[in-house]
Amino acid sequence: MRDMLGREEVLTVDDAKELLLKSVNLPLPGESEIEIENSLNRILSIDITSPEDLPPFSRSTVDGFAVKAEDTFGATEMLPAYLNITHEILMGEQPASDLKKGEAAKIATGGMLPQNADAVIMFEHCHMIDEKSIEAIKPVAPGENVIQAGEDCKKGAKILERGRKLRPQDIGALAGIGITKVRVYKKPKVSIISTGDEIVSPAGPLKSGQVRDINSYNLAGLIEISGGTAIKKGIFPDNYDLLKKALEDSLEESHIVIISGGSSVGTKDMTARLINDAGKPGVIFHGVSVKPGKPVIYGMVNKKPVFGLPGHPAAITVCFELFILPVLKILTGEKEDLYGKIKKIVRARLSRNISSGSGRQEHVRVMLEQRDNELWAVPILSKSGLITTLVRAAGTIVIPMYKTGLAEGTEVEVELF
Amino acid sequence: MRDMLGREEVLTVDDAKELLLKSVNLPLPGESEIEIENSLNRILSIDITSPEDLPPFSRSTVDGFAVKAEDTFGATEMLPAYLNITHEILMGEQPASDLKKGEAAKIATGGMLPQNADAVIMFEHCHMIDEKSIEAIKPVAPGENVIQAGEDCKKGAKILERGRKLRPQDIGALAGIGITKVRVYKKPKVSIISTGDEIVSPAGPLKSGQVRDINSYNLAGLIEISGGTAIKKGIFPDNYDLLKKALEDSLEESHIVIISGGSSVGTKDMTARLINDAGKPGVIFHGVSVKPGKPVIYGMVNKKPVFGLPGHPAAITVCFELFILPVLKILTGEKEDLYGKIKKIVRARLSRNISSGSGRQEHVRVMLEQRDNELWAVPILSKSGLITTLVRAAGTIVIPMYKTGLAEGTEVEVELF
Repeated sequence: MRDMLGREEVLTVDDAKELLLKSVNLPLPGESEIEIENSLNRILSIDITSPEDLPPFSRSTVDGFAVKAEDTFGATEMLPAYLNITHEILMGEQPASDLKKGEAAKIATGGMLPQNADAVIMFEHCHMIDEKSIEAIKPVAPGENVIQAGEDCKKGAKILERGRKLRPQDIGALAGIGITKVRVYKKPKVSIISTGDEIVSPAGPLKSGQVRDINSYNLAGLIEISGGTAIKKGIFPDNYDLLKKALEDSLEESHIVIISGGSSVGTKDMTARLINDAGKPGVIFHGVSVKPGKPVIYGMVNKKPVFGLPGHPAAITVCFELFILPVLKILTGEKEDLYGKIKKIVRARLSRNISSGSGRQEHVRVMLEQRDNELWAVPILSKSGLITTLVRAAGTIVIPMYKTGLAEGTEVEVELF
Repeated sequence: MRDMLGREEVLTVDDAKELLLKSVNLPLPGESEIEIENSLNRILSIDITSPEDLPPFSRSTVDGFAVKAEDTFGATEMLPAYLNITHEILMGEQPASDLKKGEAAKIATGGMLPQNADAVIMFEHCHMIDEKSIEAIKPVAPGENVIQAGEDCKKGAKILERGRKLRPQDIGALAGIGITKVRVYKKPKVSIISTGDEIVSPAGPLKSGQVRDINSYNLAGLIEISGGTAIKKGIFPDNYDLLKKALEDSLEESHIVIISGGSSVGTKDMTARLINDAGKPGVIFHGVSVKPGKPVIYGMVNKKPVFGLPGHPAAITVCFELFILPVLKILTGEKEDLYGKIKKIVRARLSRNISSGSGRQEHVRVMLEQRDNELWAVPILSKSGLITTLVRAAGTIVIPMYKTGLAEGTEVEVELF
């Protein structure tokens, strides 16, 4: 289908995403076993069940005296309960003896309760009579001031699920149940092929007509913060054979390939041809109704996703978020949780009217400002070719395809970088 | 001052934080120069000004013809402007010649404008007459479809500020202006001393009365995600001389020292004594009106902050967020920005009544649930000694000191982990 100007009609973002996710049925990159010390932010590849009770024994949560609760029932300041101190429980050791009726054992926070003790009375609720006896002036209920054996986690209970991104407390819990190594998914590798006869490395001098490579650095960072490993394959001229070789190498060594740049007509066509020639099924979509980022190409070659991205820095970021990130996330093995999404979105009021005549879903970069306890999104209206607008921006807002703009004061969702 | 039970009155959280921040006037850990490839999430220690114009020359943002805009003024479909194509501009090269009146040069997106050209007309707005001439059917304004030399960033302009945490696009911008190495602050080192006669390493068998070290793993993770480097000094028995040596070593090699565990009365006192004996001014506060975390100790020894934390996992997390993180953040050199704070907080409705009889600022762990487009905070009511509640939690909410609770449906701010 072609539009009035004879251009092929492009997909909507939703249709493109549907095509994308339908095509992706990828094996994950495999697993490795690592020390828990190195497991922060890594993705568990197995469920973790506890090999032991945590805590392994009933512990006191206060400093006081381990007692049989019933010995304190009815105790008051006027009518205290008398208890004999039989021993002191040393930290890290088994109590020297069991508790009998009317007995108490001195215990510190974290100490192991003696057999037959079922509660701990705090120092503050006792009067010392002498070295060997106390008056309890308050009753304690059974279980009071005690963490029971296995109360934190029972032996055999599932404590963490496959697909979990490990947080500090998760690693603490693993340590607590004696697990010092975990199986995690390997990080998916993403190759970045930079193309463009005008693109040169950031190092070294510039000749007239040349610009430095920005996008592969931006992309590498986006890949790293999303749980992947970026492989910068280098900068290639718009030469079919050289790019073909680079694509073949990349398909060999990585899970996703990005061909960045090539925003000119000739190069765009070459990227599509390269993908089609590399293997089946080839290009799946070419062009999406989004601004910036319209010329984006997505294909699949021998079960590996290949993306062709336009060269504008802002388009790179939008296309990454919309199309590459969902695929990369699947390959990391991370189970989508609510919290990740919540952290990415913040509501704000739009600081000014913005119009969108593009007829495409438009992503507008915004800064955030706090004014009188309200958060405001301040659009940065500039060309998508400028990297410094991304540097100034906190995130983006979306103007839906069929809207001609958004009014000042509208509540918008800012997707944070 | 002592309360009715003879206990010393403890500071409020606000007072404690004020004391803390007043005492902290610390030299940052120094700088190092690193490749931009490795600079993600590192903190710039200098302002970055651009050594060159970005882009270095005026570039086309579309595929079309570079023109003198005035040659197209008034052009319409019925009355087009005729232009002679003098040459094609090759990507990455200087245009072969300047533009004269009535001339046009074929140019691709990203191509360098010839001298005297000031706009680009898109292919779609031209009719090809033959190889050498076109009809422009729309006028272009001067500057249209062009990014001017230096429009993204002028030579000498400040592009990034000291204290900036580098994001992917920031690194892209550095690459774009030819900066391949940057000066960043060294990461502050935080030593963790685990104490407690009952604490043993996660590896190896447990004897009766012993528990595994959870807190130094949780703390190490919290330090890493906050931009520091954790040094686990190991587990020490409650022995003054051994701990004194460990503290001295830690003060030598790190910027902050945490003594974790020691929640029993004897150990708490020992931690305070250790800090006082190690150097001036010693303990600054001991005990804060917060639940969990009340027994927290803060001191300063020879200009290095030392914290003594109670042993409960939930108390570790609360004390870290309230007291250690602000000091650590100062030492990272990161400039507090609005976005960091925004990402940490989410609003939700409380799923049930919760009471707080503690008379202390209470931090309650919550899960988050999405119900009918609304976010709900579901309190996890359990003992602060349990690590698995932290594993289940998404973050915490705060019940202020003088409130006795919060009602179901109240809008609360959840501080996300």
